[in-house]
Amino acid sequence: MHITIDRGALLKPLAALNRIVERRPTIPILGNVLLQARGGHLRLQATDLDIWAEASAPAVVDAPGALTVPAATFHDIVRKLPDGCQIELTAEGGGARLLVKAGRSRFVLLSLPEEDWPGLPDEDLPHRFALPARAVQRILTHTTFAISSEETRYYLNGVHLHATEGCLHAAATDGHRLAHITVPLPDGAAGMPPVTVPRKTVGELARLAADAEGDMDFAVSGSKVRFAAAGITLTSKLIDGPFPDYRRVIPTGNDKIATLDSGVLKAAVDRVTTLCGERGRGVRLDFAPVTLTLSVTNADAGEASEEVVADFEGEPLTIGFQGRYLSEILGVLASDTVRLALADAGSPCLIKSHDGAEALIVLMPMRV
Amino acid sequence: MHITIDRGALLKPLAALNRIVERRPTIPILGNVLLQARGGHLRLQATDLDIWAEASAPAVVDAPGALTVPAATFHDIVRKLPDGCQIELTAEGGGARLLVKAGRSRFVLLSLPEEDWPGLPDEDLPHRFALPARAVQRILTHTTFAISSEETRYYLNGVHLHATEGCLHAAATDGHRLAHITVPLPDGAAGMPPVTVPRKTVGELARLAADAEGDMDFAVSGSKVRFAAAGITLTSKLIDGPFPDYRRVIPTGNDKIATLDSGVLKAAVDRVTTLCGERGRGVRLDFAPVTLTLSVTNADAGEASEEVVADFEGEPLTIGFQGRYLSEILGVLASDTVRLALADAGSPCLIKSHDGAEALIVLMPMRV
Repeated sequence: MHITIDRGALLKPLAALNRIVERRPTIPILGNVLLQARGGHLRLQATDLDIWAEASAPAVVDAPGALTVPAATFHDIVRKLPDGCQIELTAEGGGARLLVKAGRSRFVLLSLPEEDWPGLPDEDLPHRFALPARAVQRILTHTTFAISSEETRYYLNGVHLHATEGCLHAAATDGHRLAHITVPLPDGAAGMPPVTVPRKTVGELARLAADAEGDMDFAVSGSKVRFAAAGITLTSKLIDGPFPDYRRVIPTGNDKIATLDSGVLKAAVDRVTTLCGERGRGVRLDFAPVTLTLSVTNADAGEASEEVVADFEGEPLTIGFQGRYLSEILGVLASDTVRLALADAGSPCLIKSHDGAEALIVLMPMRV
Repeated sequence: MHITIDRGALLKPLAALNRIVERRPTIPILGNVLLQARGGHLRLQATDLDIWAEASAPAVVDAPGALTVPAATFHDIVRKLPDGCQIELTAEGGGARLLVKAGRSRFVLLSLPEEDWPGLPDEDLPHRFALPARAVQRILTHTTFAISSEETRYYLNGVHLHATEGCLHAAATDGHRLAHITVPLPDGAAGMPPVTVPRKTVGELARLAADAEGDMDFAVSGSKVRFAAAGITLTSKLIDGPFPDYRRVIPTGNDKIATLDSGVLKAAVDRVTTLCGERGRGVRLDFAPVTLTLSVTNADAGEASEEVVADFEGEPLTIGFQGRYLSEILGVLASDTVRLALADAGSPCLIKSHDGAEALIVLMPMRV
């Protein structure tokens, strides 16, 4: 292998791939990135055996070839080289080392052979569709906070996607709150199997979506998902376990409706939760016509209370919630007004943006 | 106590004082801030028994009084209240609680009485002088990185200050490197005792200096230092132990001089140290006329080398340094050119900004 490549063209894909690589892999080659030079391109791959990432950059290929080098070190070197420089990569010692040259800088990296690289299992991902990157961002912002981090409930450690007539659904829950959002079903997604995308993949998908413009391409099978944007393609295993039928949890008969200004409520929640302390005491909500009173009582520290204007009709109602959950929910709602639909102090609350029927959150109450 | 105070006037001193307060103090009242309202002002104090901080803010005092409240909680509340609001503070229950009101927000904080507050030991600090805030910043930037963090050598855990004829000296060392800088002796500093300012105090002094404009006032005794800027006054204990006679360490006969571009050398060091690894392998420097070659050899990872233009005369010389130390030193030098004065591979190197005779660094070599 002997190629010359522009530092900028190499840095961007290398940085994306380096995020996938584990810092202290049990199998040494998993700490490496695979470099394959042929036909005017350098193809790069990295994997942690759950996610496979690949990208490509234009290069002047004088001699094709392939080898693997430590991802973190190689990324650091390229990052620290001056912007705009040309980098020369040359295999040495029959592929045992990679010589990296740029200007008056010279590095030799120990490499491992391409033959030892754990290739991506060859598999067809038959369901293909495209989603606007902005829609992907909206789906992930609305659901990621609700992903469970309990490893014993591994089947909840991701965002669940499934298709129904006309809609693509995304949901996440940790048993205390459920986030659900739908977007119009894209062409090609009808008939796709229900899948649960693991948390690490969700994080990478969010980063790619933030960088992407226009549409992102998706391909799904029963065991894998693949998506691509900005020249990076990621293929990820899915969570192998059934996601619960979350639709049963969404209350339908909550007829006590409060409508509030999202920003005002968020600031008030932020202030009263100052008194929640480390033990996560609950926030008490007293709904009355025109006014919602939020309060926290903490025997070790004191009390906090806030009044906010609420459009609420009917009998006064008291309910308690975990303060952190309320804060997180108010942080992801995308509208100026929030609508809480309540039944009673012991029943889950249905939270929606005022205007958006397509996104909702269900929050379990706690005793206060 | 019953006062009304502008949120902005209260937040700034409270934030500064809150930094002094320990998060989990063994004595509960040390987690609090003392509030004393009288004569048109609210005076605030906080301490960790090593540093005492005080500040004052204008307030409408309807009833004077004093009490202490948890610093972190009180700071969080004030921080989260809307900008520009007026905050009403009222003692309740004979001073057992503080009522905090602003708009439709209401907090009750448990308080501890002023009588339990550990006051600042009354002591005269006879040596008083003023230094420009920019000079204080320069002194601290040049020395802080070299402070020892070995607790067994507690007498090196700070920045040492002493006065000689016409000069105020600042020095810090960890035995591997020594940083020394002088500024013209300010009026009033002649005859001050040599003092060592502990690391935490150095950090607070740097923050105050960054906020300050014009001069900062200092007062020094044999056991304490006090400084003030931007309405905040800090009084700190000094390190009770002799600072070594560091001047003996500064080499005077190093006659092999290399002059280099600081930025170019810094970038080259930054790149070759990528290969130093976690065990902190050394960087080898080969000086020859016109060229300095930097190299790192790491049997586990590979090699790195860089060539930079150097103005160097005489016999070629090879010397090794700890890579992190080189990076830190090049990060604090304040000029475009750096001047290294060397004797041989086993002797300390004297590093100066090319133009500034007033600041120097001594770096011990390591075997490479």
